[in-house]
Amino acid sequence: MSLTVEKTPTGREYKVKDISQADFGRLEIELGEVEMPGLMACRAEFGPSQPFNGTKITGSLHMTVQTAVLIETLTALGAEVRWCSCNIFSTQDHAAAAIARDSASVFAWKGESLQEYWWCTQRALDWGVDGGPDLIVDDGGDTTMLIHEGVKAEEEFEKTGKLPDPNSTDNAEFQILLGLIRDGLMSDPKKYHKIKERLVGVSEQTTTGVKRLYQMQANGTLLFPAININDSVTKSKFDNLYGCRHSLPDGLMRATDVMIAGKVGVVCGYGDVGKGCAAALKRAGARVIVTEIDPICALQALMEGFQVQTLEDVVAEADIFVTTTGNKNIIMVSHMKQMKNNAIVCNIGHFDNEIDMLGLQTYPGIRRITIKPQTDRWIFPETKRGIIVLAEGRLINLGCATGHPCFVMSCSFTNQVMAQLELWKEKDTGKYETKVYVLPKHLDEKVAALHLGKLGAKLTKLTPEQAAYISVPVEGPFKPPHYRY
Amino acid sequence: MSLTVEKTPTGREYKVKDISQADFGRLEIELGEVEMPGLMACRAEFGPSQPFNGTKITGSLHMTVQTAVLIETLTALGAEVRWCSCNIFSTQDHAAAAIARDSASVFAWKGESLQEYWWCTQRALDWGVDGGPDLIVDDGGDTTMLIHEGVKAEEEFEKTGKLPDPNSTDNAEFQILLGLIRDGLMSDPKKYHKIKERLVGVSEQTTTGVKRLYQMQANGTLLFPAININDSVTKSKFDNLYGCRHSLPDGLMRATDVMIAGKVGVVCGYGDVGKGCAAALKRAGARVIVTEIDPICALQALMEGFQVQTLEDVVAEADIFVTTTGNKNIIMVSHMKQMKNNAIVCNIGHFDNEIDMLGLQTYPGIRRITIKPQTDRWIFPETKRGIIVLAEGRLINLGCATGHPCFVMSCSFTNQVMAQLELWKEKDTGKYETKVYVLPKHLDEKVAALHLGKLGAKLTKLTPEQAAYISVPVEGPFKPPHYRY
Amino acid sequence: MSLTVEKTPTGREYKVKDISQADFGRLEIELGEVEMPGLMACRAEFGPSQPFNGTKITGSLHMTVQTAVLIETLTALGAEVRWCSCNIFSTQDHAAAAIARDSASVFAWKGESLQEYWWCTQRALDWGVDGGPDLIVDDGGDTTMLIHEGVKAEEEFEKTGKLPDPNSTDNAEFQILLGLIRDGLMSDPKKYHKIKERLVGVSEQTTTGVKRLYQMQANGTLLFPAININDSVTKSKFDNLYGCRHSLPDGLMRATDVMIAGKVGVVCGYGDVGKGCAAALKRAGARVIVTEIDPICALQALMEGFQVQTLEDVVAEADIFVTTTGNKNIIMVSHMKQMKNNAIVCNIGHFDNEIDMLGLQTYPGIRRITIKPQTDRWIFPETKRGIIVLAEGRLINLGCATGHPCFVMSCSFTNQVMAQLELWKEKDTGKYETKVYVLPKHLDEKVAALHLGKLGAKLTKLTPEQAAYISVPVEGPFKPPHYRY
Amino acid sequence: MSLTVEKTPTGREYKVKDISQADFGRLEIELGEVEMPGLMACRAEFGPSQPFNGTKITGSLHMTVQTAVLIETLTALGAEVRWCSCNIFSTQDHAAAAIARDSASVFAWKGESLQEYWWCTQRALDWGVDGGPDLIVDDGGDTTMLIHEGVKAEEEFEKTGKLPDPNSTDNAEFQILLGLIRDGLMSDPKKYHKIKERLVGVSEQTTTGVKRLYQMQANGTLLFPAININDSVTKSKFDNLYGCRHSLPDGLMRATDVMIAGKVGVVCGYGDVGKGCAAALKRAGARVIVTEIDPICALQALMEGFQVQTLEDVVAEADIFVTTTGNKNIIMVSHMKQMKNNAIVCNIGHFDNEIDMLGLQTYPGIRRITIKPQTDRWIFPETKRGIIVLAEGRLINLGCATGHPCFVMSCSFTNQVMAQLELWKEKDTGKYETKVYVLPKHLDEKVAALHLGKLGAKLTKLTPEQAAYISVPVEGPFKPPHYRY
Repeated sequence: MSLTVEKTPTGREYKVKDISQADFGRLEIELGEVEMPGLMACRAEFGPSQPFNGTKITGSLHMTVQTAVLIETLTALGAEVRWCSCNIFSTQDHAAAAIARDSASVFAWKGESLQEYWWCTQRALDWGVDGGPDLIVDDGGDTTMLIHEGVKAEEEFEKTGKLPDPNSTDNAEFQILLGLIRDGLMSDPKKYHKIKERLVGVSEQTTTGVKRLYQMQANGTLLFPAININDSVTKSKFDNLYGCRHSLPDGLMRATDVMIAGKVGVVCGYGDVGKGCAAALKRAGARVIVTEIDPICALQALMEGFQVQTLEDVVAEADIFVTTTGNKNIIMVSHMKQMKNNAIVCNIGHFDNEIDMLGLQTYPGIRRITIKPQTDRWIFPETKRGIIVLAEGRLINLGCATGHPCFVMSCSFTNQVMAQLELWKEKDTGKYETKVYVLPKHLDEKVAALHLGKLGAKLTKLTPEQAAYISVPVEGPFKPPHYRY
Repeated sequence: MSLTVEKTPTGREYKVKDISQADFGRLEIELGEVEMPGLMACRAEFGPSQPFNGTKITGSLHMTVQTAVLIETLTALGAEVRWCSCNIFSTQDHAAAAIARDSASVFAWKGESLQEYWWCTQRALDWGVDGGPDLIVDDGGDTTMLIHEGVKAEEEFEKTGKLPDPNSTDNAEFQILLGLIRDGLMSDPKKYHKIKERLVGVSEQTTTGVKRLYQMQANGTLLFPAININDSVTKSKFDNLYGCRHSLPDGLMRATDVMIAGKVGVVCGYGDVGKGCAAALKRAGARVIVTEIDPICALQALMEGFQVQTLEDVVAEADIFVTTTGNKNIIMVSHMKQMKNNAIVCNIGHFDNEIDMLGLQTYPGIRRITIKPQTDRWIFPETKRGIIVLAEGRLINLGCATGHPCFVMSCSFTNQVMAQLELWKEKDTGKYETKVYVLPKHLDEKVAALHLGKLGAKLTKLTPEQAAYISVPVEGPFKPPHYRY
Repeated sequence: MSLTVEKTPTGREYKVKDISQADFGRLEIELGEVEMPGLMACRAEFGPSQPFNGTKITGSLHMTVQTAVLIETLTALGAEVRWCSCNIFSTQDHAAAAIARDSASVFAWKGESLQEYWWCTQRALDWGVDGGPDLIVDDGGDTTMLIHEGVKAEEEFEKTGKLPDPNSTDNAEFQILLGLIRDGLMSDPKKYHKIKERLVGVSEQTTTGVKRLYQMQANGTLLFPAININDSVTKSKFDNLYGCRHSLPDGLMRATDVMIAGKVGVVCGYGDVGKGCAAALKRAGARVIVTEIDPICALQALMEGFQVQTLEDVVAEADIFVTTTGNKNIIMVSHMKQMKNNAIVCNIGHFDNEIDMLGLQTYPGIRRITIKPQTDRWIFPETKRGIIVLAEGRLINLGCATGHPCFVMSCSFTNQVMAQLELWKEKDTGKYETKVYVLPKHLDEKVAALHLGKLGAKLTKLTPEQAAYISVPVEGPFKPPHYRY
Repeated sequence: MSLTVEKTPTGREYKVKDISQADFGRLEIELGEVEMPGLMACRAEFGPSQPFNGTKITGSLHMTVQTAVLIETLTALGAEVRWCSCNIFSTQDHAAAAIARDSASVFAWKGESLQEYWWCTQRALDWGVDGGPDLIVDDGGDTTMLIHEGVKAEEEFEKTGKLPDPNSTDNAEFQILLGLIRDGLMSDPKKYHKIKERLVGVSEQTTTGVKRLYQMQANGTLLFPAININDSVTKSKFDNLYGCRHSLPDGLMRATDVMIAGKVGVVCGYGDVGKGCAAALKRAGARVIVTEIDPICALQALMEGFQVQTLEDVVAEADIFVTTTGNKNIIMVSHMKQMKNNAIVCNIGHFDNEIDMLGLQTYPGIRRITIKPQTDRWIFPETKRGIIVLAEGRLINLGCATGHPCFVMSCSFTNQVMAQLELWKEKDTGKYETKVYVLPKHLDEKVAALHLGKLGAKLTKLTPEQAAYISVPVEGPFKPPHYRY
């Protein structure tokens, strides 16, 4: 691998697939702006005061059209931005090109190798001699993890002189990560410490990343304040649910053109993502079976008319399998062997270990036929039956389609902007300790409110008498913190 | 009003509409048992050890078939029970008769006057010379409020000799309440203090009752420990949502036989109850418009394809109006005047002040035609247009139909049994202070688990490796407390 | 059986359950009028010219509130009317009372015996010495069959002197019918011939009745012109589909209060009625399995996400069974034995032979417990498991609820009025031969058009240029006869 | 325009975009075969007897993967095939390449000019010196029209020596057609007569093409027998309904990535196609408004909860507009001017005159920005608002996505195979006169039956007794011809 950073005429660093797609990217970004009223409202409200004047923000989040509108909202508020994607298949190259040309340093392209992925992540963190970043926008927590692992390795090295050993793990990706940290250590043994010192905080987008943060908080290893975006209502109950309801069938159709009506779909997991996926398949005319470990979610699935079974019971009769669990080892190669010919297998959870890709790749005698990028048919030697695996087991909606649509991402990303503003505003007040926080409910409600006008909605106003009767302020927040929506 | 307590041959006190309906009630209770697996599982698990041996439980909760199965679960665990309904129209007289004859003291009938309602409530609290109750099951909080108001009046009386003055309020129902307390004070000035002293705690069923409890906790006026059943996931996300989705159309159809398909429905409020109601009307073929104060709930409504408008904007074009807010003054007489001829107006929230019944009753020249009990046509003199008001503005599903069905009430009531068991078990340990608690998540999950088998569902089991990966115990609880489902 | 005809003060004959319910019936009829815009438009358009002046119409059609509005539309157009119900459980007694008191001779009550049923049918046909009827409104074809069987028996008697022999059949109902004809023959051997001579025609409401008519047309035994109402689009695709979608869950809930969500429902047959039933159960949250003989309908079911299986395959796992086939022997006692405890079994097809009621009643050792009228639990001696059979196997929506709602019946019944008007107008022109006809498409479209305003709809108008482009008149009809909607 | 026919090494003529895509096309065709059980069953049943041995078939039907499986079914039955697409944007170039390389002469590519389109059509009809075709598969009727116009011009020329004059029309496409015929006339004045003489018949796929055929039949100008595929139940109620339900959102998402949930959609026309489109948008979470001219279809829309309004009433508030009418002048430039910024306008009807593309193109000062092929933003000079027009007003699902999915097209195309077989088998028997026919119901049912196994369905079998009871054969057909499904 030999990757070189390129530069725009104005000297901005980047590495994208094809900078000439910038015009096309710009057109789609302009369309996106119309569909992202929350972000545009942030530009209108906060742009004039330039709260991020001189602030350096590193982002690691799918480099799509939607993210482009987020990035340009951050720059419109004064920030300098460096960006990478958090998934090897999720970049939209035209969006990356437009941002690289016009607004921020981007290191991302569709179809990175793992090696390239981590190179990009490092570039996004590399603010040069002046140091940085001040803030991080993270999705899945890889950038946060890199800093934590870096700091840990530097401490170990300082104490013991020991370098991280990639051979200490058999996780291929973690090997790469350790190699990178080792190489970094040799050139600058305080690199990650410096980053950590300066860093004000991170805002994290996903269930998966948030789980990592809470684990570090619990373990006492967390290094800087974090805001949990995922558990804003306007994120978890919107992007996870309505976003997946939109983008799962979109990905399935673009990848396979399969008629969903009449088919049997299995959705593994019935959390917010699973709820969106199951609803989407049902509405498209499929019969849907849900697998669940949690009896409450299972009972919810039943109340919507879904059958709840174990994967083993239904693996041989279903046509479409979707994992949404955020857990690992959900669909194993032993399951895949039993499936019908041309059964479709995909994952919409964050990581690619929900489906046993390793088991599949190493199955003796298996044959892989790539129909088109991200659509592979794997044929078992014994049965000659093939299964269709999408996006190599990674996020189908970003690998096979364009991810969640602008409108719902505007909700999520407006939360990101609120969180970044909050962290920055309070950077010297001590309000945020080295802990994980959620945004206060009035900001959550504000995010929603910014999205109503676009859809022609009109809110009812409480009278002071009514507000008193239910003990809330006239202007909200309207619900107690534990309210579930 | 001259009401007399009756007695069964065995000496059990009761007052019901018609004790001869007991056989019919028994048959429906037996059907109900098959549909209430959670309660039956409690009988099987806890019956042998008789944890409530000698415990005196007062309940104030719609005296329906479902509640009958709850009552007989409590008695099967050893309790002595006295019961009243928490709504003047919600009693199913055959269920009341069966319980009165066979199991517990019941004071309830369909169509009580307010005076009768509070008489019944007092009877349910009246354990005679030995005192009691030990525990309360409450719904809406009227019994809890009676004790709190009683104690307050007794304290005032002790301090100042002043008796409560019914004329101090113009709320007709509160006048009755104060009158009762005043009369009680004269015969026993420590009546409510004695109740309070003995009482171990209350478990409260509804949003409305819970809100009152939290207010009292905040004000420092709460007198005994309370468990908030409403915010168990297996209550608020089940009974409120799926229960109303079932029972709103049931009530509409029994009361009016109206074709819902093709009509325009307005649902005021899009909380759990409103979500169930809006879904029910949509599924029945109506076009549904939602009114909301909370931008998050409003955005949820939009994502499901509902129009969000203010009541004023749509009052003249809709056919069916449902209030679900738990607030007051939602549909005023000024709205009702503008409605189409024979527009249907009903409330599924707890109290009858969501619809301006007083405004309607006192509207000059208005004419009321009772089609059948709980179905009234009110004709405005100027327009000659009538509107159909159901259940006199009280809970339509209990006034015009039979309330929520057994299965979903089994979830709610299994929470009640868990809560009563918990309060009783810990009565001497100090675990529960004078505060409001929710049930721990593992009990919530247990309630759900007890209901899966009946629906033929099969849960997936985590492997220890998977459990470790997502940092939960193999047996659960599976979600953090803030998880929204 | 000793039944006597009663008379109103004005001398109108009737036999109903309780004439004192007339006021209640009148109130519901008035509500119904607001929901039946098609019928009210007929009154407005045709009332002034009194086209039925002196016309004698016999109707045999469920004596409900909706039918009351139909009857009073016929009388508003000048007709004299005699009416009976076409199902022993379908009469709404208050509607019958109001009509008997105010408008027409009614012979009908809820819960007739079969003997009583046929007595009522005969009364509705008995116009006394002046003879009649001129026209028949039929539902299921029993009145039409009575006349055909009567004429056949009279011919046989005239030729051979042989009387019909009830013992020649083992169908209990047909025995009664033959007995009646035999008795009639002895008092007037030309009774049915006289009816036939005068009769201008019949308009038939249902699939079942229409099938009989086409069979008679094919056999050459049809005796008078018939208009097939069932196959008007505004009947079969409305009443059958949307009516059942409304009234199946209504009947289930009134009879059993069962929670439909989470249950497994089996719908036998996926014609228009089955489509409505399957949709209703699905929307209520059930998982639905369809049984079908017709591959096209089966494929339609699959496209909506329903599983298609045979009854045998699923009989032991389902909770609710509904027959909609119009065929016989669909659910046999051998099936019922295998069902889960308290499985619910009902029929929404026209006749009660879809469910093997005879097999059930004669099953050795079976025990029947009547929970309430039309809701019976049958307990098998071997398993002690019970099943719940609704409406004794007859139409659940009319036996356990109030049938289809007004609005959709207004569509069906406006077709009836159109057909009766058409038959009467053309009685002397020879336009209608002794055949079965459907209404012309422009009348079908007119029926629909009369129902749009009530729902606030606004039609688009073709320009002459557009009309020419698609080769239809500007005012319609808009579709070719074979169009399927 | 200078187009040259190319040849494969084996001498087969073709003209496609890129023959090197044949391998990719082949892979997708192989996937398609698994999803097209009806066509594969035809190969199994009829392949061995080679009924089309030596038969020359010309097809004009969207050259997609699905069509490729149809073509190779025809060749598997012995036919020689020449093919073109019936829409300038609908070809999938990889499918065209695979067929051209492996199976049949193809003249089609995505993005033809109109000139190129008719050149391709002529090539598909050009069987060289030996003459042909024997049969035609047509979609929309352009090939059939070309022959009819050709014959008409030849007759005129023979009679009067007059050549067709392209300037006699201002329809740009018809000018091209007349020019082609004129040029042909000069080289061979009997070209179309020879085609007509040999031609056994045509099977026509669409509503639009069928309408043209019935007009010609009515006018007496039809030249050869035609089978109306469109009105097979397994076509019009499947492909039109379920196909569009799938492919409309697919096209919208691929073209615009727009979030459909929360938006207001307007569907012009509520026939089978409109029903599919309205259902798709509703299920995706949009609020849908329907426009209709036919009161019956309008009432159906209302029963499903759709608002029915005129376009004028809602043009300014909607976000997505879809025309499905098969009529012309539905959305005019005057409407488009009033739309919201970035409103999406598309057509799923057969021809591009539903949307006033000419009015748009010639609007003074309008600016067109092509976001990507088939996705254009048109900006009005006065308002600066843009609208997004998809597929240049042509079929969105074929222009912006890949058309209907394989499974539903297998139903349609199995009808095509049945029709072609039937025409060929009866070519000498006189069974088919110069008229328009539909396939008999038993073949329609057979098509459905061939698709059940793939979806795991199991049909119920009638007993002879049941069959007799409802007067149908045990093996079907099960429904009368007028049955609507």
